[in-house]
Amino acid sequence: MMERHDLDAVFQPRSVAVVGASSRMSGPGDFVGSLIDQGCPAIYPINPKATEIAGLPAYPTLTAVPGPVDHVISAIPAAAVPGMLEDAGAKGVRSIHFFTAGFAETGLADRAALQDMLIARARELDIRLIGPNCMGLYVPRHHIAFGTGMPTDPGRVAFFSQSGTHANEVVYNGALRGLRFSKVVSFGNAVDIDAAELCAYARTDAETEFVGLYLEGLADARPLLDALRTLAAVKPVALLKGGLTEAGGRSTQSHTASLAGSGSIWRAVARQVNAVLVDDMAEMEDVLVGWQFDGVPTGPRVALVVGGGGLSVQGADDIQRAGLQLPELAARTQDALRKFTPLAGTGLRNPVDTVSLWRGEGLADTVRVIAQDPAIDVLILQLGMGWAGSFDADASGGHNSQLGQQLIHARRHLRAARKTMAVVIPPTGDPRGAPATAQLISRAWQVGYPTFASIRAAARTLARLNDWRLNANA
Amino acid sequence: MMERHDLDAVFQPRSVAVVGASSRMSGPGDFVGSLIDQGCPAIYPINPKATEIAGLPAYPTLTAVPGPVDHVISAIPAAAVPGMLEDAGAKGVRSIHFFTAGFAETGLADRAALQDMLIARARELDIRLIGPNCMGLYVPRHHIAFGTGMPTDPGRVAFFSQSGTHANEVVYNGALRGLRFSKVVSFGNAVDIDAAELCAYARTDAETEFVGLYLEGLADARPLLDALRTLAAVKPVALLKGGLTEAGGRSTQSHTASLAGSGSIWRAVARQVNAVLVDDMAEMEDVLVGWQFDGVPTGPRVALVVGGGGLSVQGADDIQRAGLQLPELAARTQDALRKFTPLAGTGLRNPVDTVSLWRGEGLADTVRVIAQDPAIDVLILQLGMGWAGSFDADASGGHNSQLGQQLIHARRHLRAARKTMAVVIPPTGDPRGAPATAQLISRAWQVGYPTFASIRAAARTLARLNDWRLNANA
Repeated sequence: MMERHDLDAVFQPRSVAVVGASSRMSGPGDFVGSLIDQGCPAIYPINPKATEIAGLPAYPTLTAVPGPVDHVISAIPAAAVPGMLEDAGAKGVRSIHFFTAGFAETGLADRAALQDMLIARARELDIRLIGPNCMGLYVPRHHIAFGTGMPTDPGRVAFFSQSGTHANEVVYNGALRGLRFSKVVSFGNAVDIDAAELCAYARTDAETEFVGLYLEGLADARPLLDALRTLAAVKPVALLKGGLTEAGGRSTQSHTASLAGSGSIWRAVARQVNAVLVDDMAEMEDVLVGWQFDGVPTGPRVALVVGGGGLSVQGADDIQRAGLQLPELAARTQDALRKFTPLAGTGLRNPVDTVSLWRGEGLADTVRVIAQDPAIDVLILQLGMGWAGSFDADASGGHNSQLGQQLIHARRHLRAARKTMAVVIPPTGDPRGAPATAQLISRAWQVGYPTFASIRAAARTLARLNDWRLNANA
Repeated sequence: MMERHDLDAVFQPRSVAVVGASSRMSGPGDFVGSLIDQGCPAIYPINPKATEIAGLPAYPTLTAVPGPVDHVISAIPAAAVPGMLEDAGAKGVRSIHFFTAGFAETGLADRAALQDMLIARARELDIRLIGPNCMGLYVPRHHIAFGTGMPTDPGRVAFFSQSGTHANEVVYNGALRGLRFSKVVSFGNAVDIDAAELCAYARTDAETEFVGLYLEGLADARPLLDALRTLAAVKPVALLKGGLTEAGGRSTQSHTASLAGSGSIWRAVARQVNAVLVDDMAEMEDVLVGWQFDGVPTGPRVALVVGGGGLSVQGADDIQRAGLQLPELAARTQDALRKFTPLAGTGLRNPVDTVSLWRGEGLADTVRVIAQDPAIDVLILQLGMGWAGSFDADASGGHNSQLGQQLIHARRHLRAARKTMAVVIPPTGDPRGAPATAQLISRAWQVGYPTFASIRAAARTLARLNDWRLNANA
């Protein structure tokens, strides 16, 4: 068997052709637009019915492209794939991503046979395959993406997903909270490049510090489990396994032509290799945000700080339900807080419910005093209410313009005390409030805080990361 | 003891004075602005330092107001309250809402004594009290609210809350999903008007069909439990009890000067009276949306319909984890769907994963065929991806402009089959996508669908409402 192109070659294409390129789209699946967004140096749209797409010259076939082509994105129907594959072979292409669906996942024998033919012929032509039935590659450092509007700055998180939906979700939603990626690979039916190879790659990839993995099923679990174990021994891994229920397992078969496996097995696997097992993509994003923004607590003892209202009661319940503790602050800490905390509507024991957050140095001072309490491992601070974003940024007494500076000062105090703080800013779906809320979230992560949509989500994530830390040290 | 003003008198003030009115605010707590928003016919700002507030003449004291004053909103410091109370008595005021905090909830003896004095004197003056330490009244039918930008159209949901934060949250967030209210009362320390009286009122209030209740603690639980039992016997009640954990219970004491009570007691109470017990305000809103928009399923058997992607796997897991069923569709149903459902990326068994939703009558036809399957009680349909809102409404193949019409047609088919459907549209925090996503949510509830932020939330709510229905019939 010949030496095959390794994943570094796949992730660093010098030129990309989009076969079946269309100019009618935007967002995910607008591959030409995405490559332009990312500054890809050589983009070749292939479409026999067009002479130009998105301002670039279009070519009728791959073989008509004047320069070399490293990577092909296939967006043509499955029936047209065999011909295109021969063209790719003639052109010396290194890898093909099949956005194209309609293979084994349909459950039809002739479509499964077409997939088998594809695999065999690509191997003969020394072409690596991504998919079929997936979104492909997002590697901002090397100027390739599968959706317009994705961040162009690279980061330290790798995300490998059998679902294109989940891959889009982690990139688009994660962007708003500062998540940045080394490599995102949506690999669908996984006929060639699969989860095991991606995990093995991530283990030694210098650009990757943290890994998220979404799996639906596996033809052969053993290689993946080995790769996962060796990866998780050196880098944090979060794992979402789709199809753990009977109903979910049934639906994985039509989605990516694979078998699912039971929940108890995967819980045991996650515990053994010390991967963090999550229940959905919202939890996946929370854990990745926690890692990227130094949100791993040194223990389970939380101080909750809110700026007024019934949040303190709800938040305390959420924190205790997550398995964390909310110890009463030391008398000394309460005395220090009392010096600058006005009486009305104030709780100082823990939760700390104070309007001082919105005044002068109140936020930074509150954080400074609490961070020095030896009975506290980690802080959760809620800024904004979600609904407060419904009208304008200053409406809830927020003085958002000062908050960014206060968050910077607070960060200095936290560093001095070697403690971490999760910042909760509920997003709003209200278009009137969305810009101000998004701006506040952006300020918080730019200063370096892990941000969460609710105290409940923050507490659940801190509990998971604390367990993960204990397990890693055990 | 003299006859006191009843709650109808409190909820229908003909004129309102805001003592301590300020022109510097907007949003929650901008009482003058809120009254103007709601079209209150007689608004009197009281502030000795102003001659005009928000375009209205301001008066130095209550007694200087030229006309009669039915209701007073007090936004002055606690220490100034006794004098204002005498003025209110002289003026023949019927009710006072104390936005003012700094009473028993501080834990200080002199502040508790001030609260006691207030209660006794108000009783002598025949003035009903709301609060202290709360947001007060939102009664759109009678032109009073506690925040600007709240809907002016009345609805059928009453919400009574010891937390002002939660009261704001249900109104502002609920508005985006079509929740509309008969009365919202944030009643804080509950020194006079309390949860028991509000429940008794709601039972016979012709404008109220559904009730949400947020409690932190009770001096004497018996009257409330009696009122709750008689209320829940005739109208649906959702209950959120703050402070059920030890840490949460501790924080209720400083928030509204009350004791909490253990989780097991409240679970037993909720089961006995058949109230739906929820864990947080997001769940509260979901249940109220379910009731207002006819979302109570006739059974636990769900069909999930999504427009492509790994959503079907995740959604199936979420539905089964919620305790609902996802039966395979009848062969006849699958055959009928196959007639207009293209091959690629399609699952027809259940979940139904189809791109037909985005084409012509595909959405309405898909719903029509599935609604006729006798093995299905209720449908969950996901439209949009959340992240798809990141760029523009049509980006995920959404053709949002056609979807409104399709949802109307689908509603007709559902009515014919006497089945209900939950519509999932994940909100986006991305300002670029927020308007299109909010518009789609708005279209869905205006047609009459209960809308949810995720399949997980929809499934959890349907499971709760199904249990509630079974319990009510038992």
